[in-house]
Amino acid sequence: MSESVYKIIEMVGSSPDSWEDAAQNAIKSAGLSLRDLRIAEVETLDLKIEDGKGVTYRAKVKLSFKILSE
Amino acid sequence: MSESVYKIIEMVGSSPDSWEDAAQNAIKSAGLSLRDLRIAEVETLDLKIEDGKGVTYRAKVKLSFKILSE
Amino acid sequence: MSESVYKIIEMVGSSPDSWEDAAQNAIKSAGLSLRDLRIAEVETLDLKIEDGKGVTYRAKVKLSFKILSE
Amino acid sequence: MSESVYKIIEMVGSSPDSWEDAAQNAIKSAGLSLRDLRIAEVETLDLKIEDGKGVTYRAKVKLSFKILSE
Amino acid sequence: MSESVYKIIEMVGSSPDSWEDAAQNAIKSAGLSLRDLRIAEVETLDLKIEDGKGVTYRAKVKLSFKILSE
Amino acid sequence: MSESVYKIIEMVGSSPDSWEDAAQNAIKSAGLSLRDLRIAEVETLDLKIEDGKGVTYRAKVKLSFKILSE
Amino acid sequence: MSESVYKIIEMVGSSPDSWEDAAQNAIKSAGLSLRDLRIAEVETLDLKIEDGKGVTYRAKVKLSFKILSE
Amino acid sequence: MSESVYKIIEMVGSSPDSWEDAAQNAIKSAGLSLRDLRIAEVETLDLKIEDGKGVTYRAKVKLSFKILSE
Amino acid sequence: MSESVYKIIEMVGSSPDSWEDAAQNAIKSAGLSLRDLRIAEVETLDLKIEDGKGVTYRAKVKLSFKILSE
Amino acid sequence: MSESVYKIIEMVGSSPDSWEDAAQNAIKSAGLSLRDLRIAEVETLDLKIEDGKGVTYRAKVKLSFKILSE
Amino acid sequence: MSESVYKIIEMVGSSPDSWEDAAQNAIKSAGLSLRDLRIAEVETLDLKIEDGKGVTYRAKVKLSFKILSE
Amino acid sequence: MSESVYKIIEMVGSSPDSWEDAAQNAIKSAGLSLRDLRIAEVETLDLKIEDGKGVTYRAKVKLSFKILSE
Repeated sequence: MSESVYKIIEMVGSSPDSWEDAAQNAIKSAGLSLRDLRIAEVETLDLKIEDGKGVTYRAKVKLSFKILSE
Repeated sequence: MSESVYKIIEMVGSSPDSWEDAAQNAIKSAGLSLRDLRIAEVETLDLKIEDGKGVTYRAKVKLSFKILSE
Repeated sequence: MSESVYKIIEMVGSSPDSWEDAAQNAIKSAGLSLRDLRIAEVETLDLKIEDGKGVTYRAKVKLSFKILSE
Repeated sequence: MSESVYKIIEMVGSSPDSWEDAAQNAIKSAGLSLRDLRIAEVETLDLKIEDGKGVTYRAKVKLSFKILSE
Repeated sequence: MSESVYKIIEMVGSSPDSWEDAAQNAIKSAGLSLRDLRIAEVETLDLKIEDGKGVTYRAKVKLSFKILSE
Repeated sequence: MSESVYKIIEMVGSSPDSWEDAAQNAIKSAGLSLRDLRIAEVETLDLKIEDGKGVTYRAKVKLSFKILSE
Repeated sequence: MSESVYKIIEMVGSSPDSWEDAAQNAIKSAGLSLRDLRIAEVETLDLKIEDGKGVTYRAKVKLSFKILSE
Repeated sequence: MSESVYKIIEMVGSSPDSWEDAAQNAIKSAGLSLRDLRIAEVETLDLKIEDGKGVTYRAKVKLSFKILSE
Repeated sequence: MSESVYKIIEMVGSSPDSWEDAAQNAIKSAGLSLRDLRIAEVETLDLKIEDGKGVTYRAKVKLSFKILSE
Repeated sequence: MSESVYKIIEMVGSSPDSWEDAAQNAIKSAGLSLRDLRIAEVETLDLKIEDGKGVTYRAKVKLSFKILSE
Repeated sequence: MSESVYKIIEMVGSSPDSWEDAAQNAIKSAGLSLRDLRIAEVETLDLKIEDGKGVTYRAKVKLSFKILSE
Repeated sequence: MSESVYKIIEMVGSSPDSWEDAAQNAIKSAGLSLRDLRIAEVETLDLKIEDGKGVTYRAKVKLSFKILSE
């Protein structure tokens, strides 16, 4: 595994239910197969409050996925 | 929206159930209408452990709410 | 001056023109006389982009003002 | 309580369900009685993605527990 | 204690003698009863040097105090 | 808006005139429509000094733009 | 000294008198001989306020002590 | 050079030999010509330990490369 | 250029007009020729408010300049 | 792997030759089998300069090792 | 005061008695008149433990002093 | 050793070979005798990529050296 290389991208996912779902939504939208993905590190969590719509949980995550392996 | 001004306050909410509820409790106790509030950023999360009472989830959040708009 | 005490509040100001004006707007809206205020430290700067309205410069500042002096 | 001393250890717990459970698992595995423990501060949260196994929520926590009291 | 909420304010106290006194002065000036206050976390320490007046120790502290308990 | 997802990219823009223009140049070069963009957070500001060419203001910004909405 | 190895532990000491004493109390309770200890780095300082008991100064320190030398 | 714009990407490279090689591997895998690249800032270094395979040095780097120049 | 060495100094410049001018004033006062200087990184920005004198923009910058090249 | 728990310890290793060797020495002295260890994150690097003895490279690392798995 | 410029230097002072004295010793050794000095910001505090010599309090401070005023 | 004072300076060294050599070059260029120097803390590491010249390893270090001892 010594020569593998990973790329890291940063995304914000959201959910009306929980930060766990918000992070999962960010992963699903990254357009990558689960094979490529490895780790999603939480950078920040917040809560958006909107008139008459309740709250939205948001999670900013860094996704790392393998792009090269020898 | 160019001239709006927001004030930011910092609060700690707690809940026996989840960090999502802990953050919501901090928001509810801020004594502001939902119209004013906009974002609650999570600063820190922790877990208080108490003899014979189980655990309490706590979330320190920064609440920003509009105080001026032209 | 040895016994003076300062309070610090955090605000976000905005302006269509510059971050200097955004910070000044936060100060003006703080509802304090210039006599009380002393320092406005810039915490973060950002740029909000809105459809058909151009950009808005925003500055989050910490304002410290004297509340006690002996 | 003036002379009490606390020790702090750092652990990573995980759970297939939530970050709340991941933090609780770290606490349970610390091998300490609940009497000794006081606070578990969340350092980082992440999400491990594994082929064909879904995701695992992980929480790195700092546990502080009393070791001396006079 | 699961539903208690704390508010956090930030103040700078000063003293000609020590940082311990500077922090205590910030607490005293907060205009709160000791019942409400719980923790004063030190954010920064500095030393102001003034011509012919010696030095002043200053401590910027975050004060958390209970605002709600169920 | 609960299910929207944002991607974040990081760019450095520069300008001979001001940090405001440097940040705007980063945004313009991102190759995105203004509809997609939402926030440009300033990460760092610096000033490059070049022999016989005066100074160049540079702004490193994080751009977030919507990639999914349900 | 080239091959020596140090271990680092984190502790919170407290004292009714000063942060200097709080840090010293953390060191004394670490259960190590002074020969092993080398440096105690201050991580955070705070002040605990208790009803009818005055204040307690607390210092969170990182202690490094030699565990191996060739 | 006043109007050039740089894009920044984040990658993790690895090597069985050194952190210098790990950073170089991240650069080589970025799929960019050396003409475009300018700086690789080290974000974090770590060491992965694998059963029966020795250690792998890893370097997380931020690569900045020119995308526009006038 | 492989063996060049840079020294870094830290200065605070100020201006009644803008943070761009404040940073430039710090550079001008460093007593170095423009040939030596290379980069001025902005560390912090603030705004000093003075009775009857309006505001002063201040920029704390790190200046790096070449001291050796082979 | 969903229920595994890791403990994290912090150590400083040193070597007359390189930071890679300094980190490896910290790992070897941790008194753990390679089976248990997983990751050594570099916290800080420094260089100790001693009269007549040349330099010593030092690496402060956080070692995480598995303590529980179901 | 709009055009004044300050230089910042970083020093470590020590004292067998307190961190207040350690910071004062750093200031005294800076070789500057009190007229020039303005602020000493505390960067870090630590405690050096030496065999048979008790402890030494150390304070790393940033000193800012005026070098230009118009 | 209780009254010794250290000054800290910040330098960037570079080398075509390794970060170890880059840090050593910064130390050598500081114009100080080895007697005075004590610690070189690594602040940042990066890699400069130049057309047709390969890469240059750079290390920004903080050098502390004794200026006073009683």
